Amino acid sequence: MKKIAVVLSGCGVFDGSEIHESVLLLLNLKRAGFAVEFLAPDIEQAHVVDHLAGEPAEGQKRRVLVEAARIARGKVRDLATARAIEFDGIAFPGGFGAAKNLCTFAVDGARMTVNSEVERFVREGVESRKPMLFLCISPVIAAKVIGDGVAVTLGADSPLVGAVASWGARHVATPVRECLVDQAHRLVTVPAYMYDAEITDVAAGIAQGVAAFQTLIG
Amino acid sequence: MKKIAVVLSGCGVFDGSEIHESVLLLLNLKRAGFAVEFLAPDIEQAHVVDHLAGEPAEGQKRRVLVEAARIARGKVRDLATARAIEFDGIAFPGGFGAAKNLCTFAVDGARMTVNSEVERFVREGVESRKPMLFLCISPVIAAKVIGDGVAVTLGADSPLVGAVASWGARHVATPVRECLVDQAHRLVTVPAYMYDAEITDVAAGIAQGVAAFQTLIG
Repeated sequence: MKKIAVVLSGCGVFDGSEIHESVLLLLNLKRAGFAVEFLAPDIEQAHVVDHLAGEPAEGQKRRVLVEAARIARGKVRDLATARAIEFDGIAFPGGFGAAKNLCTFAVDGARMTVNSEVERFVREGVESRKPMLFLCISPVIAAKVIGDGVAVTLGADSPLVGAVASWGARHVATPVRECLVDQAHRLVTVPAYMYDAEITDVAAGIAQGVAAFQTLIG
Repeated sequence: MKKIAVVLSGCGVFDGSEIHESVLLLLNLKRAGFAVEFLAPDIEQAHVVDHLAGEPAEGQKRRVLVEAARIARGKVRDLATARAIEFDGIAFPGGFGAAKNLCTFAVDGARMTVNSEVERFVREGVESRKPMLFLCISPVIAAKVIGDGVAVTLGADSPLVGAVASWGARHVATPVRECLVDQAHRLVTVPAYMYDAEITDVAAGIAQGVAAFQTLIG
Protein backbone atom coordinates (compact mmCIF):
# COMPACT_ATOMS: atom_id res chain seq x y z
CA MET A 1 0.00 0.00 0.00
CA LYS A 2 1.38 3.38 -1.00
CA LYS A 3 1.76 5.92 1.77
CA ILE A 4 1.06 9.65 1.80
CA ALA A 5 2.38 12.18 4.30
CA VAL A 6 -0.26 14.78 5.25
CA VAL A 7 1.35 17.80 6.91
CA LEU A 8 -0.93 19.63 9.39
CA SER A 9 -0.49 23.08 10.93
CA GLY A 10 -2.86 22.93 13.92
CA CYS A 11 -6.66 22.58 14.09
CA GLY A 12 -8.96 25.37 12.93
CA VAL A 13 -9.20 27.62 9.88
CA PHE A 14 -7.99 30.85 11.54
CA ASP A 15 -4.86 29.57 13.32
CA GLY A 16 -4.28 26.00 12.13
CA SER A 17 -5.24 23.50 9.43
CA GLU A 18 -8.62 24.08 7.81
CA ILE A 19 -10.68 21.26 9.30
CA HIS A 20 -13.03 20.51 6.38
CA GLU A 21 -10.14 20.42 3.90
CA SER A 22 -8.10 18.13 6.16
CA VAL A 23 -10.95 15.64 6.62
CA LEU A 24 -11.94 15.65 2.93
CA LEU A 25 -8.28 15.18 1.96
CA LEU A 26 -8.01 12.18 4.29
CA LEU A 27 -11.29 10.70 3.01
CA ASN A 28 -10.28 11.01 -0.64
CA LEU A 29 -6.77 9.62 -0.04
CA LYS A 30 -8.22 6.61 1.82
CA ARG A 31 -10.85 6.04 -0.89
CA ALA A 32 -7.99 6.05 -3.43
CA GLY A 33 -6.40 3.19 -1.47
CA PHE A 34 -3.53 5.09 0.17
CA ALA A 35 -2.21 4.70 3.69
CA VAL A 36 -1.96 8.12 5.35
CA GLU A 37 0.40 9.36 8.05
CA PHE A 38 -0.19 12.76 9.64
CA LEU A 39 2.86 14.92 10.39
CA ALA A 40 3.20 18.36 11.99
CA PRO A 41 6.03 20.51 13.29
CA ASP A 42 6.43 20.52 17.09
CA ILE A 43 6.34 24.30 17.47
CA GLU A 44 4.25 26.91 19.24
CA GLN A 45 1.37 28.30 17.13
CA ALA A 46 1.98 31.85 15.84
CA HIS A 47 -1.08 32.72 17.92
CA VAL A 48 -4.43 31.32 19.07
CA VAL A 49 -7.58 32.72 17.47
CA ASP A 50 -10.95 32.63 19.23
CA HIS A 51 -12.92 31.26 16.26
CA LEU A 52 -16.24 32.54 17.66
CA ALA A 53 -15.06 36.14 18.10
CA GLY A 54 -12.71 35.98 15.10
CA GLU A 55 -10.01 37.65 17.18
CA PRO A 56 -6.74 36.60 18.79
CA ALA A 57 -7.21 34.96 22.18
CA GLU A 58 -4.79 37.01 24.24
CA GLY A 59 -2.50 35.12 26.59
CA GLN A 60 -3.30 31.67 25.17
CA LYS A 61 -0.63 29.36 23.81
CA ARG A 62 -1.10 26.12 21.90
CA ARG A 63 1.34 23.83 20.12
CA VAL A 64 0.88 22.92 16.45
CA LEU A 65 1.62 19.20 16.91
CA VAL A 66 -0.73 18.85 19.90
CA GLU A 67 -3.65 20.64 18.21
CA ALA A 68 -3.06 18.77 14.91
CA ALA A 69 -3.65 15.58 16.92
CA ARG A 70 -7.34 16.60 17.17
CA ILE A 71 -7.76 16.17 13.41
CA ALA A 72 -5.52 13.08 13.44
CA ARG A 73 -7.43 11.43 16.32
CA GLY A 74 -4.18 11.22 18.30
CA LYS A 75 -1.98 9.78 15.57
CA VAL A 76 0.44 12.45 14.34
CA ARG A 77 4.26 12.43 14.20
CA ASP A 78 6.76 15.25 14.66
CA LEU A 79 7.72 16.38 11.16
CA ALA A 80 11.36 16.65 12.29
CA THR A 81 11.55 12.84 12.51
CA ALA A 82 10.16 12.26 8.98
CA ARG A 83 12.00 12.07 5.66
CA ALA A 84 10.23 12.50 2.31
CA ILE A 85 11.79 9.28 1.06
CA GLU A 86 9.55 7.31 3.48
CA PHE A 87 6.48 8.34 1.47
CA ASP A 88 5.03 7.96 -2.04
CA GLY A 89 3.59 11.47 -1.99
CA ILE A 90 3.19 14.53 0.22
CA ALA A 91 0.03 16.59 0.83
CA PHE A 92 -0.75 19.84 2.65
CA PRO A 93 -4.26 21.04 3.57
CA GLY A 94 -4.79 24.81 3.88
CA GLY A 95 -6.04 27.06 6.64
CA PHE A 96 -4.29 30.11 8.07
CA GLY A 97 -2.02 27.76 10.02
CA ALA A 98 -0.29 26.93 6.74
CA ALA A 99 0.39 30.68 6.26
CA LYS A 100 1.20 31.47 9.92
CA ASN A 101 2.81 28.35 11.42
CA LEU A 102 4.36 26.54 8.43
CA CYS A 103 5.54 29.79 6.84
CA THR A 104 5.07 33.51 7.55
CA PHE A 105 3.08 34.45 4.44
CA ALA A 106 0.11 35.84 6.42
CA VAL A 107 2.42 38.33 8.12
CA ASP A 108 5.32 38.89 5.70
CA GLY A 109 3.77 38.31 2.24
CA ALA A 110 6.42 38.01 -0.48
CA ARG A 111 9.21 38.40 2.11
CA MET A 112 8.03 35.33 4.01
CA THR A 113 10.21 32.55 5.35
CA VAL A 114 9.28 28.86 5.51
CA ASN A 115 9.62 26.87 8.74
CA SER A 116 12.97 25.07 8.48
CA GLU A 117 11.57 21.54 8.90
CA VAL A 118 8.79 22.22 6.39
CA GLU A 119 11.29 23.61 3.90
CA ARG A 120 13.64 20.66 4.40
CA PHE A 121 10.78 18.17 3.94
CA VAL A 122 9.46 19.84 0.78
CA ARG A 123 13.00 20.11 -0.67
CA GLU A 124 13.51 16.39 -0.02
CA GLY A 125 10.22 15.80 -1.85
CA VAL A 126 11.37 17.83 -4.85
CA GLU A 127 14.79 16.15 -4.94
CA SER A 128 13.28 12.65 -4.78
CA ARG A 129 10.61 13.54 -7.38
CA LYS A 130 7.68 12.80 -5.03
CA PRO A 131 4.30 14.00 -6.27
CA MET A 132 2.97 16.76 -4.02
CA LEU A 133 -0.52 18.14 -3.42
CA PHE A 134 -1.18 21.55 -1.83
CA LEU A 135 -4.65 22.91 -0.94
CA CYS A 136 -5.98 26.46 -0.45
CA ILE A 137 -3.28 28.91 0.74
CA SER A 138 -0.59 26.23 1.22
CA PRO A 139 0.61 26.43 -2.45
CA VAL A 140 2.57 29.54 -1.38
CA ILE A 141 4.96 27.09 0.31
CA ALA A 142 5.41 25.12 -2.93
CA ALA A 143 5.83 28.33 -4.95
CA LYS A 144 8.47 29.71 -2.57
CA VAL A 145 10.47 26.48 -2.10
CA ILE A 146 10.31 25.28 -5.73
CA GLY A 147 10.28 28.57 -7.68
CA ASP A 148 11.57 27.51 -11.12
CA GLY A 149 8.46 28.57 -13.04
CA VAL A 150 6.26 26.10 -11.17
CA ALA A 151 2.53 26.62 -11.79
CA VAL A 152 0.32 26.96 -8.72
CA THR A 153 -3.18 28.20 -7.99
CA LEU A 154 -4.54 30.27 -5.12
CA GLY A 155 -8.01 30.31 -6.73
CA ALA A 156 -8.93 33.51 -8.54
CA ASP A 157 -6.36 36.14 -9.49
CA SER A 158 -5.93 38.49 -6.52
CA PRO A 159 -3.34 40.75 -4.89
CA LEU A 160 -1.81 37.58 -3.36
CA VAL A 161 -0.58 36.52 -6.78
CA GLY A 162 2.22 39.09 -6.89
CA ALA A 163 4.16 37.20 -4.23
CA VAL A 164 4.00 34.00 -6.27
CA ALA A 165 5.54 35.73 -9.29
CA SER A 166 8.23 37.33 -7.11
CA TRP A 167 9.46 33.85 -6.19
CA GLY A 168 9.81 32.83 -9.84
CA ALA A 169 6.62 30.75 -9.76
CA ARG A 170 3.51 31.25 -11.87
CA HIS A 171 -0.12 31.71 -10.78
CA VAL A 172 -2.95 30.15 -12.77
CA ALA A 173 -6.51 31.09 -11.78
CA THR A 174 -8.55 27.91 -11.23
CA PRO A 175 -12.26 27.38 -10.39
CA VAL A 176 -13.24 25.97 -7.00
CA ARG A 177 -14.37 22.56 -8.28
CA GLU A 178 -11.12 22.02 -10.24
CA CYS A 179 -7.41 21.54 -9.61
CA LEU A 180 -4.23 22.69 -11.36
CA VAL A 181 -1.58 20.16 -12.41
CA ASP A 182 2.06 21.01 -13.18
CA GLN A 183 3.20 17.73 -14.73
CA ALA A 184 6.89 18.70 -15.00
CA HIS A 185 7.10 19.61 -11.31
CA ARG A 186 4.80 16.74 -10.28
CA LEU A 187 2.65 19.23 -8.38
CA VAL A 188 -1.13 19.49 -7.90
CA THR A 189 -2.75 22.55 -6.32
CA VAL A 190 -6.43 23.00 -5.36
CA PRO A 191 -8.12 26.33 -4.46
CA ALA A 192 -10.62 24.91 -1.93
CA TYR A 193 -11.57 27.56 0.69
CA MET A 194 -9.54 30.28 -1.09
CA TYR A 195 -13.05 30.84 -2.42
CA ASP A 196 -15.95 31.73 -0.10
CA ALA A 197 -17.37 28.35 -1.10
CA GLU A 198 -19.79 25.70 0.04
CA ILE A 199 -18.28 22.48 1.42
CA THR A 200 -19.81 20.58 -1.53
CA ASP A 201 -17.71 22.64 -3.98
CA VAL A 202 -14.60 22.29 -1.85
CA ALA A 203 -15.17 18.52 -1.73
CA ALA A 204 -15.43 18.38 -5.53
CA GLY A 205 -12.15 20.27 -5.96
CA ILE A 206 -10.31 18.08 -3.47
CA ALA A 207 -11.65 14.93 -5.17
CA GLN A 208 -10.28 16.26 -8.48
CA GLY A 209 -6.97 17.10 -6.84
CA VAL A 210 -6.54 13.69 -5.24
CA ALA A 211 -7.41 11.97 -8.54
CA ALA A 212 -4.70 13.98 -10.34
CA PHE A 213 -2.25 13.33 -7.48
CA GLN A 214 -2.96 9.59 -7.71
CA THR A 215 -2.26 9.68 -11.46
CA LEU A 216 1.12 11.35 -10.82
CA ILE A 217 2.00 8.71 -8.21
CA GLY A 218 1.05 5.99 -10.68
CA MET B 1 -34.67 25.30 1.70
CA LYS B 2 -35.11 23.04 4.71
CA LYS B 3 -32.85 23.74 7.65
CA ILE B 4 -31.06 21.36 9.99
CA ALA B 5 -29.63 22.18 13.43
CA VAL B 6 -26.28 20.47 14.04
CA VAL B 7 -25.42 20.49 17.74
CA LEU B 8 -21.67 20.49 18.46
CA SER B 9 -19.88 19.78 21.75
CA GLY B 10 -16.42 21.25 21.12
CA CYS B 11 -13.70 20.31 18.63
CA GLY B 12 -11.78 17.04 18.96
CA VAL B 13 -12.68 13.40 19.54
CA PHE B 14 -11.45 13.16 23.17
CA ASP B 15 -13.07 16.29 24.66
CA GLY B 16 -15.40 17.68 21.98
CA SER B 17 -17.20 16.81 18.75
CA GLU B 18 -15.55 14.11 16.66
CA ILE B 19 -14.13 16.16 13.79
CA HIS B 20 -14.44 13.63 10.95
CA GLU B 21 -18.05 12.83 11.86
CA SER B 22 -18.95 16.53 12.09
CA VAL B 23 -17.47 17.34 8.66
CA LEU B 24 -18.97 14.28 6.97
CA LEU B 25 -22.35 15.07 8.53
CA LEU B 26 -22.17 18.63 7.17
CA LEU B 27 -21.07 17.43 3.72
CA ASN B 28 -23.89 14.90 3.45
CA LEU B 29 -26.53 17.34 4.71
CA LYS B 30 -25.40 19.97 2.18
CA ARG B 31 -25.32 17.39 -0.63
CA ALA B 32 -28.89 16.49 0.30
CA GLY B 33 -29.84 20.15 -0.24
CA PHE B 34 -30.30 21.24 3.37
CA ALA B 35 -29.25 24.52 4.94
CA VAL B 36 -27.28 23.85 8.13
CA GLU B 37 -26.92 25.91 11.28
CA PHE B 38 -24.39 24.93 13.93
CA LEU B 39 -25.40 25.26 17.58
CA ALA B 40 -23.51 24.55 20.80
CA PRO B 41 -24.05 25.24 24.49
CA ASP B 42 -22.05 28.18 25.88
CA ILE B 43 -20.46 26.22 28.74
CA GLU B 44 -16.99 25.30 29.95
CA GLN B 45 -15.71 21.97 28.59
CA ALA B 46 -15.72 19.17 31.20
CA HIS B 47 -11.95 19.14 30.63
CA VAL B 48 -9.32 19.67 27.93
CA VAL B 49 -7.53 16.59 26.59
CA ASP B 50 -4.07 16.79 25.03
CA HIS B 51 -4.90 14.73 21.94
CA LEU B 52 -1.23 13.88 21.31
CA ALA B 53 -0.57 12.52 24.81
CA GLY B 54 -4.13 11.18 25.18
CA GLU B 55 -4.25 12.67 28.68
CA PRO B 56 -6.02 15.59 30.37
CA ALA B 57 -4.19 18.90 29.90
CA GLU B 58 -4.00 20.06 33.51
CA GLY B 59 -4.89 23.67 34.20
CA GLN B 60 -6.34 24.35 30.73
CA LYS B 61 -9.88 25.59 30.23
CA ARG B 62 -11.79 25.92 26.97
CA ARG B 63 -15.42 26.76 26.20
CA VAL B 64 -17.60 24.41 24.14
CA LEU B 65 -19.13 27.16 21.97
CA VAL B 66 -15.75 28.78 21.21
CA GLU B 67 -14.05 25.50 20.25
CA ALA B 68 -17.09 24.35 18.23
CA ALA B 69 -16.55 27.48 16.11
CA ARG B 70 -13.38 25.81 14.74
CA ILE B 71 -15.50 23.14 13.02
CA ALA B 72 -18.15 25.72 12.09
CA ARG B 73 -15.60 28.17 10.60
CA GLY B 74 -16.83 30.85 13.00
CA LYS B 75 -20.55 30.44 12.45
CA VAL B 76 -22.12 28.81 15.50
CA ARG B 77 -24.96 29.99 17.73
CA ASP B 78 -25.53 29.56 21.45
CA LEU B 79 -27.95 26.64 21.82
CA ALA B 80 -29.80 28.57 24.56
CA THR B 81 -31.11 31.00 21.91
CA ALA B 82 -32.43 28.25 19.59
CA ARG B 83 -35.82 26.55 19.53
CA ALA B 84 -36.42 23.21 17.77
CA ILE B 85 -39.40 24.69 15.95
CA GLU B 86 -36.99 26.84 13.88
CA PHE B 87 -35.62 23.72 12.19
CA ASP B 88 -36.81 20.86 9.97
CA GLY B 89 -34.55 18.37 11.70
CA ILE B 90 -31.89 18.07 14.41
CA ALA B 91 -28.54 16.25 14.22
CA PHE B 92 -25.78 15.44 16.71
CA PRO B 93 -22.28 14.23 15.76
CA GLY B 94 -20.43 12.09 18.31
CA GLY B 95 -17.09 12.40 20.06
CA PHE B 96 -16.45 12.28 23.80
CA GLY B 97 -17.72 15.86 23.99
CA ALA B 98 -21.23 14.51 23.44
CA ALA B 99 -20.72 12.22 26.47
CA LYS B 100 -18.85 14.73 28.67
CA ASN B 101 -20.18 18.20 27.78
CA LEU B 102 -23.71 17.56 26.47
CA CYS B 103 -24.40 14.90 29.09
CA THR B 104 -22.38 13.11 31.79
CA PHE B 105 -22.49 9.59 30.34
CA ALA B 106 -18.67 9.25 30.17
CA VAL B 107 -18.47 9.83 33.94
CA ASP B 108 -21.82 8.70 35.35
CA GLY B 109 -22.99 5.96 32.94
CA ALA B 110 -26.64 5.02 33.49
CA ARG B 111 -26.95 7.67 36.24
CA MET B 112 -26.01 10.44 33.82
CA THR B 113 -27.73 13.79 33.51
CA VAL B 114 -28.23 15.74 30.27
CA ASN B 115 -27.22 19.41 29.98
CA SER B 116 -30.40 21.41 30.60
CA GLU B 117 -30.34 23.29 27.26
CA VAL B 118 -29.61 20.08 25.33
CA GLU B 119 -32.45 18.29 27.12
CA ARG B 120 -34.83 21.19 26.49
CA PHE B 121 -33.90 21.31 22.78
CA VAL B 122 -34.28 17.55 22.26
CA ARG B 123 -37.61 17.53 24.15
CA GLU B 124 -38.86 20.35 21.90
CA GLY B 125 -37.77 18.23 18.93
CA VAL B 126 -39.72 15.23 20.24
CA GLU B 127 -42.82 17.30 21.00
CA SER B 128 -42.83 18.94 17.56
CA ARG B 129 -42.15 15.57 15.83
CA LYS B 130 -38.88 16.76 14.25
CA PRO B 131 -36.78 13.97 12.71
CA MET B 132 -33.51 13.58 14.63
CA LEU B 133 -30.16 12.02 13.74
CA PHE B 134 -27.59 10.99 16.35
CA LEU B 135 -24.08 9.68 15.54
CA CYS B 136 -21.61 7.55 17.50
CA ILE B 137 -22.02 7.91 21.31
CA SER B 138 -24.57 10.75 21.08
CA PRO B 139 -27.57 8.33 20.85
CA VAL B 140 -27.29 7.97 24.63
CA ILE B 141 -28.83 11.46 24.79
CA ALA B 142 -31.78 10.36 22.62
CA ALA B 143 -32.22 7.15 24.63
CA LYS B 144 -32.22 9.01 27.97
CA VAL B 145 -34.48 11.90 26.92
CA ILE B 146 -36.96 9.87 24.84
CA GLY B 147 -36.99 6.50 26.65
CA ASP B 148 -40.37 5.01 25.62
CA GLY B 149 -38.90 1.91 23.94
CA VAL B 150 -37.03 3.98 21.36
CA ALA B 151 -34.53 1.95 19.31
CA VAL B 152 -30.96 3.28 19.17
CA THR B 153 -27.58 1.88 18.19
CA LEU B 154 -24.17 2.36 19.77
CA GLY B 155 -22.61 -0.03 17.23
CA ALA B 156 -21.94 -3.55 18.50
CA ASP B 157 -23.47 -4.90 21.69
CA SER B 158 -21.20 -3.93 24.59
CA PRO B 159 -21.33 -3.17 28.32
CA LEU B 160 -22.58 0.33 27.35
CA VAL B 161 -25.90 -1.16 26.28
CA GLY B 162 -27.10 -1.77 29.83
CA ALA B 163 -27.54 1.96 30.39
CA VAL B 164 -29.76 2.25 27.32
CA ALA B 165 -32.08 -0.47 28.60
CA SER B 166 -32.17 1.13 32.07
CA TRP B 167 -33.70 4.27 30.53
CA GLY B 168 -36.49 2.27 28.85
CA ALA B 169 -34.87 2.44 25.43
CA ARG B 170 -33.71 -0.48 23.28
CA HIS B 171 -30.27 -1.15 21.77
CA VAL B 172 -29.97 -2.71 18.31
CA ALA B 173 -26.46 -3.74 17.18
CA THR B 174 -25.75 -2.16 13.77
CA PRO B 175 -22.74 -2.51 11.41
CA VAL B 176 -20.46 0.47 10.81
CA ARG B 177 -21.59 1.14 7.23
CA GLU B 178 -25.30 1.11 8.19
CA CYS B 179 -27.77 3.12 10.25
CA LEU B 180 -30.73 2.26 12.47
CA VAL B 181 -34.13 3.84 11.88
CA ASP B 182 -36.93 4.02 14.46
CA GLN B 183 -39.83 5.16 12.26
CA ALA B 184 -42.31 5.66 15.08
CA HIS B 185 -39.94 7.93 17.00
CA ARG B 186 -38.63 9.59 13.82
CA LEU B 187 -35.08 8.81 14.96
CA VAL B 188 -31.98 7.72 13.00
CA THR B 189 -28.81 6.56 14.78
CA VAL B 190 -25.43 5.75 13.19
CA PRO B 191 -22.54 3.91 14.91
CA ALA B 192 -19.68 5.77 13.11
CA TYR B 193 -16.52 5.82 15.31
CA MET B 194 -18.13 3.64 18.00
CA TYR B 195 -16.21 1.11 15.90
CA ASP B 196 -12.42 1.31 15.50
CA ALA B 197 -13.13 2.05 11.86
CA GLU B 198 -11.60 3.62 8.77
CA ILE B 199 -12.95 7.02 7.74
CA THR B 200 -14.28 5.43 4.52
CA ASP B 201 -16.56 3.14 6.56
CA VAL B 202 -17.65 5.98 8.82
CA ALA B 203 -18.45 8.07 5.72
CA ALA B 204 -20.60 5.24 4.31
CA GLY B 205 -22.58 4.94 7.55
CA ILE B 206 -23.15 8.69 7.80
CA ALA B 207 -24.29 8.81 4.15
CA GLN B 208 -26.82 6.06 4.95
CA GLY B 209 -27.93 7.91 8.06
CA VAL B 210 -28.44 11.23 6.29
CA ALA B 211 -30.39 9.48 3.48
CA ALA B 212 -32.74 7.91 6.05
CA PHE B 213 -33.01 11.25 7.92
CA GLN B 214 -33.93 13.00 4.65
CA THR B 215 -36.65 10.42 4.01
CA LEU B 216 -38.12 11.07 7.47
CA ILE B 217 -38.09 14.83 6.83
CA GLY B 218 -39.79 14.24 3.48
